[in-house]
Amino acid sequence: MRILTGKRLYLFFAVVGVYFGYNLAFGSSGGEHSGGSPVLETLLELLVILLTAKLGGDLFERIKSPAVLGELIFGMLLGNLHLVGFPYLEPFKTSQILEILAEIGVIILLFQVGLESTVKEMMKVGLASFMVAIFGVVAPFFLGWGVAIWFLPEASIYVHLFIGATLTATSVGITARVLRDVGKINTREAKIILGAAVIDDILGLIILAVVTGIISAVSSGSGDGISSGRVLFIIGKAVLFVIGAVAIGSLILPHYFRLGFKLRGTGVFLTFCLLVCFLLAYLAGKVGLAPIVGAFAAGLILEEAYFIDFIERGEHSIGELIEPIAVFLVPIFFVRMGMMVDLSTFAHIEILGFATVLTIAAIVGKQACSLAIFDKTINRISIGLGMIPRGEVGLIFASIGAKLIMEGKPVISSETYSAVVIMVIITTLVTPPVLVMSLKRGMKTKAEPK
Amino acid sequence: MRILTGKRLYLFFAVVGVYFGYNLAFGSSGGEHSGGSPVLETLLELLVILLTAKLGGDLFERIKSPAVLGELIFGMLLGNLHLVGFPYLEPFKTSQILEILAEIGVIILLFQVGLESTVKEMMKVGLASFMVAIFGVVAPFFLGWGVAIWFLPEASIYVHLFIGATLTATSVGITARVLRDVGKINTREAKIILGAAVIDDILGLIILAVVTGIISAVSSGSGDGISSGRVLFIIGKAVLFVIGAVAIGSLILPHYFRLGFKLRGTGVFLTFCLLVCFLLAYLAGKVGLAPIVGAFAAGLILEEAYFIDFIERGEHSIGELIEPIAVFLVPIFFVRMGMMVDLSTFAHIEILGFATVLTIAAIVGKQACSLAIFDKTINRISIGLGMIPRGEVGLIFASIGAKLIMEGKPVISSETYSAVVIMVIITTLVTPPVLVMSLKRGMKTKAEPK
Repeated sequence: MRILTGKRLYLFFAVVGVYFGYNLAFGSSGGEHSGGSPVLETLLELLVILLTAKLGGDLFERIKSPAVLGELIFGMLLGNLHLVGFPYLEPFKTSQILEILAEIGVIILLFQVGLESTVKEMMKVGLASFMVAIFGVVAPFFLGWGVAIWFLPEASIYVHLFIGATLTATSVGITARVLRDVGKINTREAKIILGAAVIDDILGLIILAVVTGIISAVSSGSGDGISSGRVLFIIGKAVLFVIGAVAIGSLILPHYFRLGFKLRGTGVFLTFCLLVCFLLAYLAGKVGLAPIVGAFAAGLILEEAYFIDFIERGEHSIGELIEPIAVFLVPIFFVRMGMMVDLSTFAHIEILGFATVLTIAAIVGKQACSLAIFDKTINRISIGLGMIPRGEVGLIFASIGAKLIMEGKPVISSETYSAVVIMVIITTLVTPPVLVMSLKRGMKTKAEPK
Repeated sequence: MRILTGKRLYLFFAVVGVYFGYNLAFGSSGGEHSGGSPVLETLLELLVILLTAKLGGDLFERIKSPAVLGELIFGMLLGNLHLVGFPYLEPFKTSQILEILAEIGVIILLFQVGLESTVKEMMKVGLASFMVAIFGVVAPFFLGWGVAIWFLPEASIYVHLFIGATLTATSVGITARVLRDVGKINTREAKIILGAAVIDDILGLIILAVVTGIISAVSSGSGDGISSGRVLFIIGKAVLFVIGAVAIGSLILPHYFRLGFKLRGTGVFLTFCLLVCFLLAYLAGKVGLAPIVGAFAAGLILEEAYFIDFIERGEHSIGELIEPIAVFLVPIFFVRMGMMVDLSTFAHIEILGFATVLTIAAIVGKQACSLAIFDKTINRISIGLGMIPRGEVGLIFASIGAKLIMEGKPVISSETYSAVVIMVIITTLVTPPVLVMSLKRGMKTKAEPK
């Protein structure tokens, strides 16, 4: 009976889905006075994506997997419907609106995650995070370099260097979401991973600058492309951002919220928190870091003490207020991420070998992270696994490489680019299940008497 | 001391504002690996808009005006900074992302407003709403026609007809927001206005179809442009939408939420409510109505009884869950609306006379609405005032007219278009203060012993 209801449920939504598909394909192009069809397109996209997210999340929760994996996989199915003759969802992939909504979604997610920690807690794991980040950047870099030599022996050292660089940066969105989904976001492991991801992002920025600098210098024939001044400038900006964020936290925020408390009107508290989040995400982007790093920092520096006035006035906590916005926007990021997975990439037999080995290097490389942890009470395996996902940053590295021309050829050829795409896909999909498994095993081990 | 703090507050934000201006103008174009600058641009836009909204809202609440007026006026100032040599906010006006976020914002607002009523309550005021809508369409139509004859005596009857048509449709967003701001959204007056706005929108659709049909028929020389079949089809679609929405409410929603209750994962309840909202907004747009009409209908048909399971499980009410999303998105709509006001339009002396008289016709015309109310216990003046705002619908009518060519000239000339723009601006700005005044006077009258 229960299963029957579940089936009817899916049937119902299947019918709704088919209706939309039909409508998308053959429907009229919207009424004249409806405020323009971009809005209607966006509404339709939101309908499909939110429904997909909930159905995917439900199915995967039922099989004891994190909801985010369901969102990714269902998104992947949705994004590849054109392979079975249903091309009507293709515009979703190029919609800039969806892209921005997804970005705001992941910014909100990392803000939420940051809210669940404090600067002090992060300081405590600071050294561990730093070591994890260093190990997790160095090992994949050299492994990637080696793989590149193996598969592209005729290419120059600079190409090998660049391929190594694309393997370095962790994309922490997936891991953060998995840790939240399974209620582990407050563990020490989670904090080490998150801290490492921030440092990792800064290291990635430096590596990109150095490698790009070297290549530009070589290809232009001049020797001053890798000016150490430029590298120092980049490091300076990133460090300044982190210090600046913490300074904002302790110096400006108390005043800021005291002033905000005086403002009349509804929603001031939430708006003031969102402003901090968006400001730091923006500034992070401006100094060349990922905006999500800024959003995470914003969450970190917002501490209960600053807005005690609001809470006493009877406002909900910021965690409660941000949740509905997250429910609305976060799934857009993950479903869209799934949709961007082009399954036909896997059909290129000739690059599958390279892609497979590159992926293995990416995964194995990050396991070096667990070597950086000496404390036996910490679930080291989970840290290594949590650092696996590569995301936009890897793709952005690769696309910068594709634009760098050396000896008349791009540093990252289109075959290499496809291999990087496959690496990103697999690291993203593989993380949720293995991380959950490892976290559960870690719990069992701890529960056993010694 | 208190004022000093207020001043310091504004000073602080002024400095922040200047910094952003500077940054916008001279800042670097964003880091390479930041996920692309459209995201950063959007973040910056959100920062400026949300801060403006809260400061404007605060100031106007202090002078006992609705916050929405502050958002509009501060938005207007922001949007006209280019007149004083600060052009860096101009891209805000053309940003499609902001446009869509604003649209989603007003959809969420009308959904919220709809949630505060039920179908049954709306039925009770149905006849009153219908009469108000009819009076409020007929009177401005003929007044506009008259004004057009007066100012454009040489133009053809079709031009006069079209100008009359642009004055008919009420844009209920402003009024709904004012009624919420002053806590009057649950009054009978509010319900009559909201119901009338829905009917009004349907009537506007019919008028547009008929007038456009007549003009096309005349200019193409054929007599069958105004086929009554086409008009019936449009009426049919709109009526079907309303009936369909109510049917969905009573027939499908109970099952839908029962099914949703079985889904695992977080945020299912809010997502399922959002899906109803977006679906009806989308369908409304598809049948040619304004999407906000659909969102309002969605709010109406969602009734507590359907999601009692969720509430018993300890979820927040939908009103509470939707509020943070509204806090985030609704101000974008109103600040952006203010920004779109081009103050330089008012410098065209030659059209100011026409614009003034057209605006008076628009305002006076809607006062006919109060004649449709025979019940003396209802604040009739407030209903007439609440119907004043014209918005996108009027502009869309005008822009359709600008594209209709008749005897080699557009039906709506660029001068007429400017006059319509001015009419929309003034009706929007004038409504909040006069409506608040009338509502307050109404309260006093009721409070007095008879």
